[in-house]
Amino acid sequence: MSTGGERATALRLIADRLAAHTGGVLAANAEDLAAARAAGRDAAVLDRLALDRARLDALAATVRSLADEPDPVGGVDGGGVMPNGLEVRRVRVPLGVVGMIYEGRPNVTVDAAALCLKSANAVLLRGSSTARRTNAALVAVIRSALADTSLPVDAVCLVPGVTHASVRALMALRGLVDVLVPRGGHDLIRATVRDSAVPVIETGVGNCHVYVDEHADLDKALAVLLDAKTRRPSVCNAAESLLVHGAVADAFLPRALTALAAHGVLVHGDERVRSYDPAVVPATEDDWGREYLAPELSAAVVGSLDEAVEHIRRYGTGHTEAVVSDSQSAVRRFVALMDTAVVAVNASTRFADGGQIGLGTELGISTQKLHARGPMGLAALTTTTHVLVGDGHVRDGAAVPET
Amino acid sequence: MSTGGERATALRLIADRLAAHTGGVLAANAEDLAAARAAGRDAAVLDRLALDRARLDALAATVRSLADEPDPVGGVDGGGVMPNGLEVRRVRVPLGVVGMIYEGRPNVTVDAAALCLKSANAVLLRGSSTARRTNAALVAVIRSALADTSLPVDAVCLVPGVTHASVRALMALRGLVDVLVPRGGHDLIRATVRDSAVPVIETGVGNCHVYVDEHADLDKALAVLLDAKTRRPSVCNAAESLLVHGAVADAFLPRALTALAAHGVLVHGDERVRSYDPAVVPATEDDWGREYLAPELSAAVVGSLDEAVEHIRRYGTGHTEAVVSDSQSAVRRFVALMDTAVVAVNASTRFADGGQIGLGTELGISTQKLHARGPMGLAALTTTTHVLVGDGHVRDGAAVPET
Repeated sequence: MSTGGERATALRLIADRLAAHTGGVLAANAEDLAAARAAGRDAAVLDRLALDRARLDALAATVRSLADEPDPVGGVDGGGVMPNGLEVRRVRVPLGVVGMIYEGRPNVTVDAAALCLKSANAVLLRGSSTARRTNAALVAVIRSALADTSLPVDAVCLVPGVTHASVRALMALRGLVDVLVPRGGHDLIRATVRDSAVPVIETGVGNCHVYVDEHADLDKALAVLLDAKTRRPSVCNAAESLLVHGAVADAFLPRALTALAAHGVLVHGDERVRSYDPAVVPATEDDWGREYLAPELSAAVVGSLDEAVEHIRRYGTGHTEAVVSDSQSAVRRFVALMDTAVVAVNASTRFADGGQIGLGTELGISTQKLHARGPMGLAALTTTTHVLVGDGHVRDGAAVPET
Repeated sequence: MSTGGERATALRLIADRLAAHTGGVLAANAEDLAAARAAGRDAAVLDRLALDRARLDALAATVRSLADEPDPVGGVDGGGVMPNGLEVRRVRVPLGVVGMIYEGRPNVTVDAAALCLKSANAVLLRGSSTARRTNAALVAVIRSALADTSLPVDAVCLVPGVTHASVRALMALRGLVDVLVPRGGHDLIRATVRDSAVPVIETGVGNCHVYVDEHADLDKALAVLLDAKTRRPSVCNAAESLLVHGAVADAFLPRALTALAAHGVLVHGDERVRSYDPAVVPATEDDWGREYLAPELSAAVVGSLDEAVEHIRRYGTGHTEAVVSDSQSAVRRFVALMDTAVVAVNASTRFADGGQIGLGTELGISTQKLHARGPMGLAALTTTTHVLVGDGHVRDGAAVPET
């Protein structure tokens, strides 16, 4: 197996090459962009697809910073010496082969390759057809760098083919691929979870709530709500639903609705919310469960913290839930009753991000409970081996019969 | 949520009741045994099914010792204060609802209920039809104890119905059941992994090898082999295959084959192994992959450590592999190249057991890489929540517009 030093050296070389050899990548990206424009793709798709020198530099910087992170492999995270003298060590080891299935942004190509290399895994990258020339160019740069290191070039492979057949093929490789990580829209993730024979780490769908408690500081509540909803509505940790305690509805909702309207947010409200602003449209049952990923928000007034909790447990996706309150006991109860990857107390849902909470570059945000939950850093790409060292130790200590 | 103190108190009460109210359980067990005998079930099934006062005392003792173990819930296993003052805590929380699907032994009923209660999970128990009266009686004792505590009685439920329909129903409860743990034969586990919509932790199948290196102490090798193969052939951490380096074959195999024969072990050998003993039958390709769970063993001579590694990587099940060697470099290489839950160095494969390596009572031995690998103690029944605490923190720190 490679050493951590060899892997860090390889990442630094990849970063250098990404920063230096931008011509081929940008030319391929221009072709992808032209094809996407010709196909009439919308502005958001084009924006996610587009690379320029600054974005490539940012990608290279991410790879370089990963090189400097502590080695996730080989750490001993448990163990001891048993009463019979048997030594036990629980050692972190790579998962093996990681399959990434993703849409849109070519930065996932580089991030996933770098995360997998850092953690001594091999990676199979299956990006979208929209970015296929860009992804091929990026992988070519990475592989040509690997060819000048002690690591195998095939540690990073682009899956040939961008039709659904290649996804189906990946999902069938149980025993050869150790884990699949789908990143993208709800349909992609659901289909992968449902159909894959390879174990899957489910990422991303976030119907995130902001609950404004009766004991909330309303200035802080407004700041948190606006950050969570309006700064970047298209991401999974953006807020999609607002719950306001009835005792502060009169004081909070008129201000909040005016501010949301100023940011162009369409609010789907219950009857009480609508009473404050005629621009609020009626919320349907469907709205409570929606991840808009757009400047839209569902909003309701609740009679108590427990009613808010019940609403969230019914409609939430286990991603991130925020409470704004200055009551210590209310916060304690809210945190205890949330069954979710992240709970934000007097803070924006948008802090549900590996970089924001000290985990470094993330592979995605897991909304499942097994293996990894919440922002997944390098540790999520490892598993453990128990190494037991004895000196001829047998379990029952019985004498070996004479032979 | 319950406190750790409440859960420990409940477990102690359950232990007391199990030790005190043995009559009903033993009567139910006698009926199950009579039915199994009438159905012509074999002696091994009857032995696994049978309870007596001593076995019930042992079950009660396990529950009592679980009560005394550290609380697996609420521990903070990561976090810190971010540069912007946001406090981050990664907290261990219960999975939620655990489904156990198991065969045969009624001790799993008590062990699983106690492990789940200790870790603040609810458990749905789906045992075998053979043990259905015994399981019902055990669960009745547990639930009547729970009724006298602050915990909900329904934290432990026996699934009504012992046909395959109840297993299918459990496997469909995605979103209601958080994880299924199948324990039993290969077919049960494979069917659950294949068909379940609920996430599964795969347990148990163990085609475990003992590799005797050219630098092995042959006395230790023989002790390890006999312990691994003969002490309890029916369990998943028993050895199923022996690989001997060619340089020590002449010195080791005659002794080993004589000792194995004295223990009634039938050896399926390659040509070289057969040359030492006419009682060795020819190994077929099929034998290398078999988990006999019986006094049978496949055996081959290999030309090198790397050949042994290659054989194990091809036929092993990722459970437990043992190497016997006094060469530090050989051991280092073997450990690095194993992709398996447990590697035993100069020690029996039978140490792959939660109780033997300091993890306490185990729920099973996971042979998958995600979530938990190897013997699963209480920690495997928890997941994490990231609790972020701010004071009106917003991600981009921008001012809130005046409203």
